[in-house]
Parts: sequence; C-alpha cells; structure tokens
Amino acid sequence: MISKNDVKYIQTLFHKKTRDEERVFIAEGPKLVNELLTARITIKKIYALREWAEQQTKPDSITIVAEHELQKISALQTPNQVLAIAAQPDVMHEPNLTGNITLVLDGIQDPGNLGTIIRTADWFGIKQIVASNDTADKYNPKVVQASMGSLIRVSMWHKDIGEWLAQTTIKIYGAMLNGDNVFTANKISEGLLVIGNESKGIRADVLPFIRHSLSIPGRGGAESLNASVATGIILSHIV
Amino acid sequence: MISKNDVKYIQTLFHKKTRDEERVFIAEGPKLVNELLTARITIKKIYALREWAEQQTKPDSITIVAEHELQKISALQTPNQVLAIAAQPDVMHEPNLTGNITLVLDGIQDPGNLGTIIRTADWFGIKQIVASNDTADKYNPKVVQASMGSLIRVSMWHKDIGEWLAQTTIKIYGAMLNGDNVFTANKISEGLLVIGNESKGIRADVLPFIRHSLSIPGRGGAESLNASVATGIILSHIV
Repeated sequence: MISKNDVKYIQTLFHKKTRDEERVFIAEGPKLVNELLTARITIKKIYALREWAEQQTKPDSITIVAEHELQKISALQTPNQVLAIAAQPDVMHEPNLTGNITLVLDGIQDPGNLGTIIRTADWFGIKQIVASNDTADKYNPKVVQASMGSLIRVSMWHKDIGEWLAQTTIKIYGAMLNGDNVFTANKISEGLLVIGNESKGIRADVLPFIRHSLSIPGRGGAESLNASVATGIILSHIV
Repeated sequence: MISKNDVKYIQTLFHKKTRDEERVFIAEGPKLVNELLTARITIKKIYALREWAEQQTKPDSITIVAEHELQKISALQTPNQVLAIAAQPDVMHEPNLTGNITLVLDGIQDPGNLGTIIRTADWFGIKQIVASNDTADKYNPKVVQASMGSLIRVSMWHKDIGEWLAQTTIKIYGAMLNGDNVFTANKISEGLLVIGNESKGIRADVLPFIRHSLSIPGRGGAESLNASVATGIILSHIV
C-alpha cells in the first residue's frame, strides 16, 4: 500500500526541477529496474506488484502496491509491475575529451529520440554526451525508458554548446546534409561529433566550429533521417 | 467552421477498420500536407487555420477552422495548422522482389518506430516493406507523422511472414545478435532483409528462413539497438 504523500512526492519527480533538487530519477519495468539493481546505482525506494516483489532477494525492502496504485504513480501508458526511485549517479564536473569520442547534441528536444541516442552511443562504447540546454533532460522519464538502462553507462552534461565549443581544441565533426561521405570517412578514436535537430539542423552559432562535416549518402526521396538513426549510422562508420 | 458530422467522421478514421473501408488516411502539419499536395496523392478534404489556407493556391477548397476546432480533430498534442484526409495510394497486389531489396518487418508494433523505419528505407531507396500482421498499420496517424511523407514512396504489405517466406526463393538476410559482421559484409542489390522486434527478436517460425544473419558489432553495454537505428545501420553498410 502506498501513502498519499508518496503518490504526491513521486508526481513531483516528473518535473526536472524537483528531480535535480532531490538528485533522483524514476525508472519503471522489471528489465530496467533489474539493471539498476545489478549496477552500482543507489535505489531509494521500490514500489511493485506482489508477484514481482516475491521474485526478489530482498522482498522486505519493497513497498507492495496494487495495480490501481501503480497506475497512479506510473508515467507509462501501461504500468509494468515495478517503479523505482533511484539516485542520480555522480557525474564529473567536465567531460574528459582526450582519447575519447564525445557526442554533442544540439537541440534534441524529443525525449524518445534522446533516449535512443543514449542507447546507441552506449552500443558503440561512447561514454560521454554534451548537450545543448534545450536538449531533453537525461532523467526525463521518457528518456530513461527509451535509453533502456544505457543512461547508467553514459554521462551527460548540459551546456551552452556554442560557448563550450569555442574553448575546446579537439577535432570537431558534424552531421550535415552536404558533408564528406561518411561511408568512406576514416575511423576516428578521438573527437567531438555534433548531431543537430533533424528539422532545423545544427544551429548557426555552432556551425562555425564544425571542421569536418560528414554526410550519409541517400538515394531515395526522404529529406532527412531521424536524429538517432543518423547518429547510429555515422558511429557505425567512424568508430 | 467544421460540422459535428465531420468531427465524428474524422474521429472514426483513427481506427484502422474505418480507414481501410474508406481507403483514406489522415496527415497533419504544413510540411507533410504540402508534400502530399505536390505528390500524386488525392486529397479528399483539408481543414486548416486561415493563415495557412491563405498561403495556398486554391484556398477555396479548404475548410477554414478555428484553433479549438482543429484541436478536436487533431491526433497531435499540439495541432499544427492543417489536417488533410488523403486517399490511400493503390498498392500492387504483391511486391516485386526481383532486383530489389525488400524490408521484412517482424512485430514492429511501435508506430513511431515503424514511421522512422519507413523514412529510413526511403532514404536508402528501399521501396517495399512486407510486415507481419502484428506490425503497426502504415496509415496509423503516428506512423504517418513519423514517416514524414516517406510513406508516399514506400509500399507496404501486411502478411503472415512465416507462410510468405516459405514461398519465396530469393536470398533472405536477417538482423541477428550473433550473425556475420555487417561492417565487412558484401553489398547486395537484391534480397529480403528481416528486422525483428527489438526485445523479442525475430520470431521462431521466421528464423528457419534466414540464410544470412547479419550483426552490428558493439563495444558498449547496451543489450540491443532500437529497431529503426539497427535498420539504418545495416542498410548503410549493405545497400
């Protein structure tokens, strides 16, 4: 059984401000919660249906809820057995650019897209993402669900991208419509890869910093690719 | 001004059954509707805000609606100026497999994912998709919006995939977790590429037909890639 206060508290965590003050995030579903439990993530609280709780090693630490209670606190259309409140992992003050490929996201506002990009970065071993201030929040519940646990392994910083790029001396690559063919590009082991918003592209104050523009040759009629699909294709050719 | 009957009729078009009986689909937003207008698609009806209508060459054929009226008929969270009812283009009885790469989708239930796959296929010049009966409907409004007009150029058939593959003699490739490295695979110009559901994979009755399994090597911790990202990466390496 869940208290009214707990319901209220969880609902406040759908707002970035409260999440950041409390330094927590919400994760739902057996797959994701199990992944958090096996990773070095501090779980503050778990609310779950009895069936799920009884399969766990420490069922006593879990608050058992009924389906209609889970419905109240879940952000999913179809609540999925368990909801956990987890501590946001500590992130270094600044990304370590030397010897790494770091993804730079400019205006990726759609949370599902951001989650898929985090997951794709993780697949290719990219551990760092620097995102513009208007990119979706990493701990937005939709981002968490779409990232499928990859957010534990990928660190993310929000910055004024234009200002920040002006201070970096590392090679800067960008996904553009009229760049060099990424299918024949050299592999890289260090650098920044800038991905822009799929309808607006990379914004004007960021463009001047791109030294190596990369394009995905197409032969059909589509005007653009989804940002996460483009990220996946480029990483698969240059990493 | 929009009539009550029109509102009711449009709401019935959110159901696949009515869409198929009426052989129409709904498209929203200036970008998509403009693309339909320039393509050889029959537009049955357009409902739009005055600002949008006045920019068109035939404003008289457009039903002007107020914002609150557009809200009533729109499937978007934020209605976007214009909604059109368009005729479903005629599709050949069967796909033409000879000399073409045809995408085969097994259980892609998420409409956003299907729309992104259609758009990605279009980018790489793939014109045909055969999908399992439980794959989302091509004319589902969310698929239409995510495909960004690519659905005009890509034909799609729903079939019992297992039965259908048993009758084809063309080469069948499949995206699998333990297949040949797609980064070093040969380019192909003819064949079927089967993409499975990202959590369940390709289903058991389809697996025996896969003659060439392809994998995307990863080095990070993610268990799987999003189906549309995987489709994009594989197509970028083999087409």
